[in-house]
Amino acid sequence: MNSIDLNCDMGESFGVYSLGNDVALMDYVSSVNIACGFHAGDPGVMRETVRHALEKSLAIGAHPGLPDLAGFGRRTMAISPREAYDMVVYQIGALYGFVRAAGGHLHHVKPHGALYNMAAQDTSLAAAIAQAVKDVDPTLILYGLSGSTLILAGEAEGLRVANEVFADRTYQSDGTLTPRSQPDALIHHDDEALNQVLDMVSQGKVQATDGQWIDIQADTICIHGDGAHALEFAVKIHQTLQQSAVVQSM
Amino acid sequence: MNSIDLNCDMGESFGVYSLGNDVALMDYVSSVNIACGFHAGDPGVMRETVRHALEKSLAIGAHPGLPDLAGFGRRTMAISPREAYDMVVYQIGALYGFVRAAGGHLHHVKPHGALYNMAAQDTSLAAAIAQAVKDVDPTLILYGLSGSTLILAGEAEGLRVANEVFADRTYQSDGTLTPRSQPDALIHHDDEALNQVLDMVSQGKVQATDGQWIDIQADTICIHGDGAHALEFAVKIHQTLQQSAVVQSM
Amino acid sequence: MNSIDLNCDMGESFGVYSLGNDVALMDYVSSVNIACGFHAGDPGVMRETVRHALEKSLAIGAHPGLPDLAGFGRRTMAISPREAYDMVVYQIGALYGFVRAAGGHLHHVKPHGALYNMAAQDTSLAAAIAQAVKDVDPTLILYGLSGSTLILAGEAEGLRVANEVFADRTYQSDGTLTPRSQPDALIHHDDEALNQVLDMVSQGKVQATDGQWIDIQADTICIHGDGAHALEFAVKIHQTLQQSAVVQSM
Amino acid sequence: MNSIDLNCDMGESFGVYSLGNDVALMDYVSSVNIACGFHAGDPGVMRETVRHALEKSLAIGAHPGLPDLAGFGRRTMAISPREAYDMVVYQIGALYGFVRAAGGHLHHVKPHGALYNMAAQDTSLAAAIAQAVKDVDPTLILYGLSGSTLILAGEAEGLRVANEVFADRTYQSDGTLTPRSQPDALIHHDDEALNQVLDMVSQGKVQATDGQWIDIQADTICIHGDGAHALEFAVKIHQTLQQSAVVQSM
Repeated sequence: MNSIDLNCDMGESFGVYSLGNDVALMDYVSSVNIACGFHAGDPGVMRETVRHALEKSLAIGAHPGLPDLAGFGRRTMAISPREAYDMVVYQIGALYGFVRAAGGHLHHVKPHGALYNMAAQDTSLAAAIAQAVKDVDPTLILYGLSGSTLILAGEAEGLRVANEVFADRTYQSDGTLTPRSQPDALIHHDDEALNQVLDMVSQGKVQATDGQWIDIQADTICIHGDGAHALEFAVKIHQTLQQSAVVQSM
Repeated sequence: MNSIDLNCDMGESFGVYSLGNDVALMDYVSSVNIACGFHAGDPGVMRETVRHALEKSLAIGAHPGLPDLAGFGRRTMAISPREAYDMVVYQIGALYGFVRAAGGHLHHVKPHGALYNMAAQDTSLAAAIAQAVKDVDPTLILYGLSGSTLILAGEAEGLRVANEVFADRTYQSDGTLTPRSQPDALIHHDDEALNQVLDMVSQGKVQATDGQWIDIQADTICIHGDGAHALEFAVKIHQTLQQSAVVQSM
Repeated sequence: MNSIDLNCDMGESFGVYSLGNDVALMDYVSSVNIACGFHAGDPGVMRETVRHALEKSLAIGAHPGLPDLAGFGRRTMAISPREAYDMVVYQIGALYGFVRAAGGHLHHVKPHGALYNMAAQDTSLAAAIAQAVKDVDPTLILYGLSGSTLILAGEAEGLRVANEVFADRTYQSDGTLTPRSQPDALIHHDDEALNQVLDMVSQGKVQATDGQWIDIQADTICIHGDGAHALEFAVKIHQTLQQSAVVQSM
Repeated sequence: MNSIDLNCDMGESFGVYSLGNDVALMDYVSSVNIACGFHAGDPGVMRETVRHALEKSLAIGAHPGLPDLAGFGRRTMAISPREAYDMVVYQIGALYGFVRAAGGHLHHVKPHGALYNMAAQDTSLAAAIAQAVKDVDPTLILYGLSGSTLILAGEAEGLRVANEVFADRTYQSDGTLTPRSQPDALIHHDDEALNQVLDMVSQGKVQATDGQWIDIQADTICIHGDGAHALEFAVKIHQTLQQSAVVQSM
């Protein structure tokens, strides 16, 4: 079995507001996506999160989002490809400042929330984001929804890409995620989620909601960082994969 | 006579709001300080300003400010040295993203507005800012008020520094700028301002408001970018210095 | 001929950034829509704009927008009806503070930019906005695109409404505005625009781009406030309507 | 013994970020100060907080702060009196929108954080804030540090005022709070804090850190809303005062 990367969104606190369980979760992932101040995070949080990640030798990624702190970057906005390019360059650069100040190395970029979802489907936005990543540093790895438009755009730019899969989301037979508006969008039982992950990692397959088995490329698995259950599940998935695969960053 | 740098604050437009006469002024300066989105500027403005500056082969500097868009970074805020460090690292990084994406080189850092003034007097803030600049890139030149605490902090960190002087501000016999609250703070006649510049550049001296001649180190001169008169004066000072000195970035 | 209201968006400056020609335009309109700080405007600008409007005895309206200063509230955002309700209540209230402090009277509410366009088509958003207006003050008049979903929602809530028409935009035979993406969306000649206005005001009809004459309710006409030509056209339309109708606020 | 008001800052959550234990604390206070979106709070949080307060029949106050979400309004900013006036009018108005939409009544205004502290000492700022409150609604009660410049400014404007005292802060013999930078600024034992409250409420006196008993006017007591201990102490102080005084809003 191949090695697999476990990634988690982190650095989402802001000012007096604390969110997530970053330091504890860092023991169970191989890479972190750090918010850059647009949808969450602030300069102090970014510095601290970079420091912790370097102490644990984790791969550090920028996690650029839409300029919507009040909506946590989850509300779709009709931005132009040029605006997407600009906000991604800005946010990668800002995090790069902290990584460089701490003597570290920037490893990847994963868009956040609505920007991630828009880039998974919109060819122009995806191309603009891939261009932004390449222009800032062509050695950065672009994380995106497995098999999505963003992954294709990254490959077209000659970037290394990481196809991201989800442990607790179900898939349609066309390879897309079941929309959250559907009742069967989420996998609620840990065992079921762990089995899905093992299928994806070991066989490159996932069973869609209609029962079909479809091919899926799994380079990295997203671990959710908030919620009471997050840490517990992170421990389980980490253990499961340790037994059957090497967990390491891309 | 030595060469001298002429610098100007630029990239201060925001969204639909246009400010300054950046492109025209670029013909008369050798270095630009580009706003980084905290007190002014936005990602699109930063990209465009970097592009224009590179086309004119100007030295590009980050111009980090306080997080106060409504106050244009001019209102003193009681930030801690740690907060100053963080906001400077963030903003240098953000601009660095655009400079790197455009294939350029980041040359210097000059704090903006209230942050500039606070750093000229507050030892802890000055040290934090110098540390931030050094941590991101020790080859960056730190611009600060001539002879001020910020210049001393930069030198203590081993950074190259640029002592900044003003053409249109008067000086006290202790070397500080006459506060704007005083009636004689500003020099209103161009000839007077040009003579002051020539004295500072050629002889390293300036006549204080009490008539005394004092020593002053003039590595770079600040040209104001807004106001109807700005371009006209920039042309004059550029011509005057061209005749008697080499205008070039630090 | 009936009387007609001429309205104009105002108070769109922000901090050091100046936008529009508010005071001059106030001589040619009967009502103003004042930005409330989300897409443009700030507390100081709001106070000043209210003061000027009261001096000219103009009807004052709140002009709530999306929380997107960088995009001037023009970028569609996927907000929920609840969020629309909340941001409209907040912004009406904020402007109400200044109107009350100045001893004035709040007259109407007109959503701005993308919020206006979304509310013209989305039934749930329109209902939420109408509810917000009614809950804050049921005597407020709701301005919206003539015949649109927002107008219907206002009527359903029992609010007085003002059907807004545009002088310089063309119409489709179904009564909608020709999208800006189409080449014939804008009317570029003043005479043509003035004739369209007169047709709408005097006969309640407008000629669509396919040549058909359709019914349109014209209670208020939007005068654009920015651009070099804005003031000139405002004078013309004001004069034209003065000759054939009484210009007065709803 | 007179009645006494217990007030608590509330509505300080923002977007996905939750802060404080508002609903539980509402059982032990008589008035609430609701953040208005500048230092904390957002439109949705404001609506919800107003709703809960009305359900518990609590007196509702606006809690305007500096425009510094990242710093929670705790960082002193050099704003002008005019800017203070404008930001207070804006924020009172915004909250008023929600109070009116919910069919409630706005009772008081208490500045937050650095704005509160600045207004306690700066005559011009205090006058501007008192003017703002009066201009929006002269029946509003102005809450301020007991005996401070803000209280005097409110009285000079003819406003009703509420002298605020603190249970867990020590006092100097000149009536000011011991600065937090001093080791004895805080009272750590509940019994000591309760005794101080009883002395202030029943006798109008407090023992300063140097042992002197000084006069102090106690119209309202501030209960802190965050921290693990907040609710527990709120229960104690509420019980203590119920036994010896009537807890009711001003």
